[in-house]
Amino acid sequence: MADKLTKRADDYAQWYNDLVLKADLAEHSDVRGCMVIEAARLCDLGEDAIRIGRYVQGHRPRECILPTLHSQKLSRQGGQPCGRLREGMCRGHTLPPKSDPVHGVVVDPTAKLEEELIIRPTSETIIWNTYRGWVKSYRDLPLLINQWANVVRWEMRTRLFLRTAEFLWQEGHTAHATREEAVEETERMLQVYTTFAEEYLAIPVIRGVKTASERFAGAEDTYCIEAMMQDGKALQAGTSHFLGQNFAKAFDVVFANKENQQEHVWATSWGVSTRLVGALIVTHSDDNGLVLPPKLAPTQVAVVPIAKNAEQMEAVKDYFAPALAAMRAKGITVKFDDDDTKKPGWKFAEYEFKGYPVRIAIGPQDMENGTVEVARRDTMEKQVMQVIDLAEKVEHLLKPSKATSSESLGIA
Amino acid sequence: MADKLTKRADDYAQWYNDLVLKADLAEHSDVRGCMVIEAARLCDLGEDAIRIGRYVQGHRPRECILPTLHSQKLSRQGGQPCGRLREGMCRGHTLPPKSDPVHGVVVDPTAKLEEELIIRPTSETIIWNTYRGWVKSYRDLPLLINQWANVVRWEMRTRLFLRTAEFLWQEGHTAHATREEAVEETERMLQVYTTFAEEYLAIPVIRGVKTASERFAGAEDTYCIEAMMQDGKALQAGTSHFLGQNFAKAFDVVFANKENQQEHVWATSWGVSTRLVGALIVTHSDDNGLVLPPKLAPTQVAVVPIAKNAEQMEAVKDYFAPALAAMRAKGITVKFDDDDTKKPGWKFAEYEFKGYPVRIAIGPQDMENGTVEVARRDTMEKQVMQVIDLAEKVEHLLKPSKATSSESLGIA
Repeated sequence: MADKLTKRADDYAQWYNDLVLKADLAEHSDVRGCMVIEAARLCDLGEDAIRIGRYVQGHRPRECILPTLHSQKLSRQGGQPCGRLREGMCRGHTLPPKSDPVHGVVVDPTAKLEEELIIRPTSETIIWNTYRGWVKSYRDLPLLINQWANVVRWEMRTRLFLRTAEFLWQEGHTAHATREEAVEETERMLQVYTTFAEEYLAIPVIRGVKTASERFAGAEDTYCIEAMMQDGKALQAGTSHFLGQNFAKAFDVVFANKENQQEHVWATSWGVSTRLVGALIVTHSDDNGLVLPPKLAPTQVAVVPIAKNAEQMEAVKDYFAPALAAMRAKGITVKFDDDDTKKPGWKFAEYEFKGYPVRIAIGPQDMENGTVEVARRDTMEKQVMQVIDLAEKVEHLLKPSKATSSESLGIA
Repeated sequence: MADKLTKRADDYAQWYNDLVLKADLAEHSDVRGCMVIEAARLCDLGEDAIRIGRYVQGHRPRECILPTLHSQKLSRQGGQPCGRLREGMCRGHTLPPKSDPVHGVVVDPTAKLEEELIIRPTSETIIWNTYRGWVKSYRDLPLLINQWANVVRWEMRTRLFLRTAEFLWQEGHTAHATREEAVEETERMLQVYTTFAEEYLAIPVIRGVKTASERFAGAEDTYCIEAMMQDGKALQAGTSHFLGQNFAKAFDVVFANKENQQEHVWATSWGVSTRLVGALIVTHSDDNGLVLPPKLAPTQVAVVPIAKNAEQMEAVKDYFAPALAAMRAKGITVKFDDDDTKKPGWKFAEYEFKGYPVRIAIGPQDMENGTVEVARRDTMEKQVMQVIDLAEKVEHLLKPSKATSSESLGIA
């Protein structure tokens, strides 16, 4: 595996691409910039962020499911154009197909949609068209909506996870009675993302405010967290926008304040996406393959028994059974790999490449000595340990030096 | 609320539509047949089904995220057309917009996509194009993939939840070495859906096999569960398809069997969708509003204190505090509604309309007698109960007469 991986020093971009493909995290689909994501566990990141967001906010945002398609008319509603998004969008028209999914779709070129539709690049348009109906009075505020969704942006250059035409994200949209409250929400979510990146993903980030030209179109201020890739380039890892009253004015979203006067609401939006998976890879991984923080690894420990025949394999299993049970009782996820069609050397390479945080090997010598060999992936250090209290020691190895945000927030 | 609800006897379709909108379950978006779904809890149905599916299968399907867009070329791959889907599809081309989300999108009419793209109506095309790379040998089988996704079908007549242009669903796609194993999988999933509908949603269903003309295009057999609406019409609530070798042949997915001969794999696919939310509504609800099975209700118990002033409200709170704590300790979700801007009568109507399974009222008389009034939504029966052991009694009320599938499967 690792020997087929391009070295970072030779070609950083190629190293990244090789790694994502060879570690089976994702693959290209038939449409440029779109992908099939295989390791769904990694993509729960956004949902974890939502949970953290909920907790920190102290009030649970309502979860909504917003439609993928919206009309051109609606998206034009705000008035004349004032800028240009870097991203493109899809425009669709609907056709009755003359065929079926197994034999191929042939669309009818004469059939046309009554109106052209936009595939969402983000959901502000739909949200603010919807909020107009939901917000009447100060009692309806703050209004906090969150969704986990797919969006499409026609990027010129795409890279798996880091920049794809379609990506998944968590997008929050909030409406507030005052500017101060909206600014506070914007800053709160930036802090939530910072905590999540640093304590859960172990990705150090720099917080900042975007310049006017880099700002999200429609925002008064765009706050962001930026991670650093190993080639020294910055990677935007999450954004939180203070939208002022721009969307409220464009979509005429007003509320009656306590004095019964009509005011436009103040808004924020914020999101992190599957790009965080890319950030995770470029932050931790090395020329030997993936490196994953233990909290995030789908399986934390791989155990490789070294046995020449079925009888020896049974002996190793018996020897290791108490340690295995003890680890599992602690909630550690362990794979005991007794596949006899693969050699131990192949397994070592595989688990190293796939970023299992801890790999344990058990040979005949170990069984005589009451030991096992423990290798940690991040530092590549190997250590011989007693099997008797192995679970405690492995638990310690897997514990991050800082408490994870989940733990420190009490929502582990 | 309920007085503005059309009676079922007067206009069943209108009753349904009123109910969905007035109970805030969903609303129409700006695109025909698309909706904003507000009560996300109801839409976790599909994900519950996935969990049940995993358990029953005894082997966890891999979770995947497949792209929304695929190329026309790919969807034509199978050869000449052989039928016509009832559903339409979207065809897109991509354009760089000249504007931003707050001020409206203006697409450039001169920009065109290099190729036309299809928004998925289902994912067989992408799955089978992907499986070609994943399946090499009998050791790779069975291959079980599941995803929770949005799909688009251009329906002529749409109804919230029951038939929408975009809907969310759980779609499973499996590949097997033999016909027998694939048929077994098809039947197993039909049973999973049956159990889920009957024991979790409390929806009685009839299992059956579709006629050739109703069959999913590309399937050799389509099994389904059908629920019955209160107007006596059937509602297809879930399908499980035996696909034979059709997709494997169209996409050239072959494997080396144990004798090292190349064979096409055998396939199934199966899905349940947000339509189940519609099925739930039309099965249980009545002229007074929503009725929800306790397992599914976002909040199971609403408590309405009857108090004339802040002092009385405090007294009711103190009186009810032990019962409230005891219910919550049992995992019962309870809303204690001390909002003094709404009258108790308004609250009674609201909770009845929204389908809270149990509503408790506490008046001055109750406090003297050590009682509360308990109303159950399904039968509309009211009962005076002692407050002392209320939690046990409410727990009993909320318990379904049959064990839920989650419980009986040990995964509650």
